[in-house]
Amino acid sequence: MKRFVFLFISFFIALNCLGKTRLSMSELIAQSKSGDWRPLDPANTLYLELKSGRVIIELAPGFAPKHVENVKKLAQEKYWDGLAIVRAQDNYVVQWADPNSSDAAKKKVIKTGKATLDAEFETAWDSKKSFVKLKDGDIYAPEVGFVDGFPVARDLKTKKGWLLHCYGAVGAGRDNASDSGGGTELYAVTGHAPRHLDRNVTLIGRVISGMELLSSLPRGKAAMGFYDKTEQPVAIKSLHLASDIPEADRTQIEVMKTDSKIFQDVIESRRHRPEEWFKYRADRIEICNVPIPVRTK
Amino acid sequence: MKRFVFLFISFFIALNCLGKTRLSMSELIAQSKSGDWRPLDPANTLYLELKSGRVIIELAPGFAPKHVENVKKLAQEKYWDGLAIVRAQDNYVVQWADPNSSDAAKKKVIKTGKATLDAEFETAWDSKKSFVKLKDGDIYAPEVGFVDGFPVARDLKTKKGWLLHCYGAVGAGRDNASDSGGGTELYAVTGHAPRHLDRNVTLIGRVISGMELLSSLPRGKAAMGFYDKTEQPVAIKSLHLASDIPEADRTQIEVMKTDSKIFQDVIESRRHRPEEWFKYRADRIEICNVPIPVRTK
Repeated sequence: MKRFVFLFISFFIALNCLGKTRLSMSELIAQSKSGDWRPLDPANTLYLELKSGRVIIELAPGFAPKHVENVKKLAQEKYWDGLAIVRAQDNYVVQWADPNSSDAAKKKVIKTGKATLDAEFETAWDSKKSFVKLKDGDIYAPEVGFVDGFPVARDLKTKKGWLLHCYGAVGAGRDNASDSGGGTELYAVTGHAPRHLDRNVTLIGRVISGMELLSSLPRGKAAMGFYDKTEQPVAIKSLHLASDIPEADRTQIEVMKTDSKIFQDVIESRRHRPEEWFKYRADRIEICNVPIPVRTK
Repeated sequence: MKRFVFLFISFFIALNCLGKTRLSMSELIAQSKSGDWRPLDPANTLYLELKSGRVIIELAPGFAPKHVENVKKLAQEKYWDGLAIVRAQDNYVVQWADPNSSDAAKKKVIKTGKATLDAEFETAWDSKKSFVKLKDGDIYAPEVGFVDGFPVARDLKTKKGWLLHCYGAVGAGRDNASDSGGGTELYAVTGHAPRHLDRNVTLIGRVISGMELLSSLPRGKAAMGFYDKTEQPVAIKSLHLASDIPEADRTQIEVMKTDSKIFQDVIESRRHRPEEWFKYRADRIEICNVPIPVRTK
């Protein structure tokens, strides 16, 4: 009996010590090693240049290969340069496009890219993919987790995977027909995750840096947050691939590897927030509340 | 056997018809009756007046009675008039307070209200409360639903209820001690629902109208999105109770009753989006994605 009491007390003390030594996300980042981080691949990174600064988008060719290929072509032919952000709907999205898209005489000509593509709402699930599952469940999908830095869902019954509409997700706007998008009109999620859009739009990537330049734009006054004629659309200086920019002009940032041990520690730290400020620890976390740390090199 | 086949076919046709006649939220609103709506109670409504316009906040005395009482006193003594929005953190919150709160000589004197109060993170669950449960579950709480127009959670084991940190939720900022808040510093959620804050801060209400005036503010450059010394805090013209404003100057808006049949129809419509644009219907909805319709009278 005494032995059990002793074991119980040891266990209790151990638990308490563990509780006390759990690190906050910033402490974990401070302790991280260089191998815990990856640079962005310049060939899969877009720089959206606005007057206010640079928005950096990481593309996800593993989930939307044809759309990503098309978006790269459009970037390389400078399709978006001089176009504009035409929509900012509160708690939803900002969207950029050709403000003259409905005027055949004025609209920008697409040279090498395509105007529309078949949808890539979901992709065949590759069992070799490194899926880092989140154990807390999800309201919308059977399983959620991370693949190569992206929040994703998978359904092993249908053997499909898809990217999630978390804050900062970037997608290819479309009209009613599934194949009416293609990447010429892109949007970024600026509000509470509109997860009902999952599998309804082809997501092509997510914003890694500069979200505040999009999310703080004045909301459009017309229906669905489009800027009306009295408002000034926000000009796009350029939207290019990082690999097409001189190396000296690229932003040197790194993203924490989502298949690393330290990323699991970050998730644990966010489940059970160790900071003194927290009085109640949720002990659970919802996928779009998991931060994927980014740092400048 | 034939009879069963007939029944089955009838059932199938009926299901399809139901599918086709499901109305969108805007169609439901167009069909609603005046009894489906309630006006805001001027004695429980705050008008936050900025240069850009009016933000309307509905208070929740049923969940934070002491904080709401204190906030009303502070509004009536014009505590916030001339103070400022001092923080705008991307994908998180905006916060308003006395920019001189740490300068004893300059800081605004509190007259009739209190600087701090005991926390009201959760309240005893009153079984007579009309709790309209959402059947889709939740990652953070045992049960979620709506009480009198507010998204809430309850735990029947602990017999407690609490307001949720959905987009637009308004809370009383605090320091590390639970009783260090009280309502002098208020914040509104401007990003993806930070549900880990539930039961860590006293929520006092939610923004009913004008969220875009807060969510589109430039993000602060200092730590946690506070405006630094080079930035201009956003001035608060006034923060008063609607009941203290001449009736002619009040905004005539109504909120859909969350215990109405039509609100259930709205939730169903948002679970199974009938609009032609949707190709995949989630058939589920997460509590902070449920819109609570508002209309001008």
